[in-house]
Amino acid sequence: MPGLTIGDEIPNLEVETTHGKFKLHDFIGNQWTIIFSHPGDFTPVCTTELGLMAKYSAEFEKRGAKLLGLSCDGVQSHNEWIKDIEAHTPGCKVNYPIIADPNRDIMKQLNMVDPDEKDPNGFPTPSRALHIVGTDKKVKLSFLYPATTGRNMDEIVRVLDSLQKAAKNKVATPANWKQGEPVVISPSVTNDEAKKMFPQGFETKDLPSKKEYLRFTNV
Amino acid sequence: MPGLTIGDEIPNLEVETTHGKFKLHDFIGNQWTIIFSHPGDFTPVCTTELGLMAKYSAEFEKRGAKLLGLSCDGVQSHNEWIKDIEAHTPGCKVNYPIIADPNRDIMKQLNMVDPDEKDPNGFPTPSRALHIVGTDKKVKLSFLYPATTGRNMDEIVRVLDSLQKAAKNKVATPANWKQGEPVVISPSVTNDEAKKMFPQGFETKDLPSKKEYLRFTNV
Repeated sequence: MPGLTIGDEIPNLEVETTHGKFKLHDFIGNQWTIIFSHPGDFTPVCTTELGLMAKYSAEFEKRGAKLLGLSCDGVQSHNEWIKDIEAHTPGCKVNYPIIADPNRDIMKQLNMVDPDEKDPNGFPTPSRALHIVGTDKKVKLSFLYPATTGRNMDEIVRVLDSLQKAAKNKVATPANWKQGEPVVISPSVTNDEAKKMFPQGFETKDLPSKKEYLRFTNV
Repeated sequence: MPGLTIGDEIPNLEVETTHGKFKLHDFIGNQWTIIFSHPGDFTPVCTTELGLMAKYSAEFEKRGAKLLGLSCDGVQSHNEWIKDIEAHTPGCKVNYPIIADPNRDIMKQLNMVDPDEKDPNGFPTPSRALHIVGTDKKVKLSFLYPATTGRNMDEIVRVLDSLQKAAKNKVATPANWKQGEPVVISPSVTNDEAKKMFPQGFETKDLPSKKEYLRFTNV
């Protein structure tokens, strides 16, 4: 995945979408944004993914996060395809914009090109990439899944919860963490600082090294 | 995440690990391999992650997959730290090797540098990167999580199941798919081919476009 990565600001590209033309920074505003690409319209995995993204859109909205899709097909194709998506996932409205990228330029600048797949004409196709962008318009986390593996909406919600937690407090989330479970205090926080920062208290794990780095709290 | 990506062969580097020195290709052999890096020994999230990797190692073994960790600390530090990991996750043995990379060279070649974090001395640190490598020694899937978000072992098992399914059959797995659920037939397979390839039958979804691309089967 050469190019755009964690810590980089999303370039302020003008994009054509199923919701009209806009600049990426205007769309993002100061909200968390999930930008996800998919190999092509009228393809099986993508249809299930975009349907579930719509099904989960209330979860993302609750977290103040916007959704933005991308594939290299045109707006008209996207609009026709949305009918299939909504028919396959009944009760779901694809209420987020999908970028049209027929010139395959946006996907390059957003680092969403599949290095391992070509379309039937030999042109590069978008990967199953996903960037979570923070309110500062910087990439916070990226997935790169191959064309054959559909993404997991629950994992996207889980990592968004983690990123939002870490953006508000000096904490990180342990392996397999889910919303509501204890978090760990960042190593950069001293014990004295932690006492002030976390008046609710924290539990320091007693480890063989006797180093006090594994400190759990609830925020 | 510049550098090594999906479709690339893992470079055949000689590495020093908690299980001695070996070359990466010798270690991988013809098995699926999960190579994962972590920011540092004696840090909170990593301790929970490596413990859970050990706890899930039977799941990975069942799927014929090997595990290989990496951080830029030395072997002695890794060995001391393993005592903490095993104390924190009781009943778990860290039975997989952890690469020592004090010169920070391996992590660069494996594309596991965190572009957004530095250690207290200003040196680059490994990211929470993870590559799943196929039996052909090529990268099949990559995650890039920030230091503050621990990974999800269930998602790693899920995507491994998907990759193995797709490697054996001309299928892909839909969004949120789990082992045992129906898969979709790849768009490159014609209906006539599908009838021969999937004698168990398949169900073609009736969609508004009348295009027959969403075909579910069980393999």
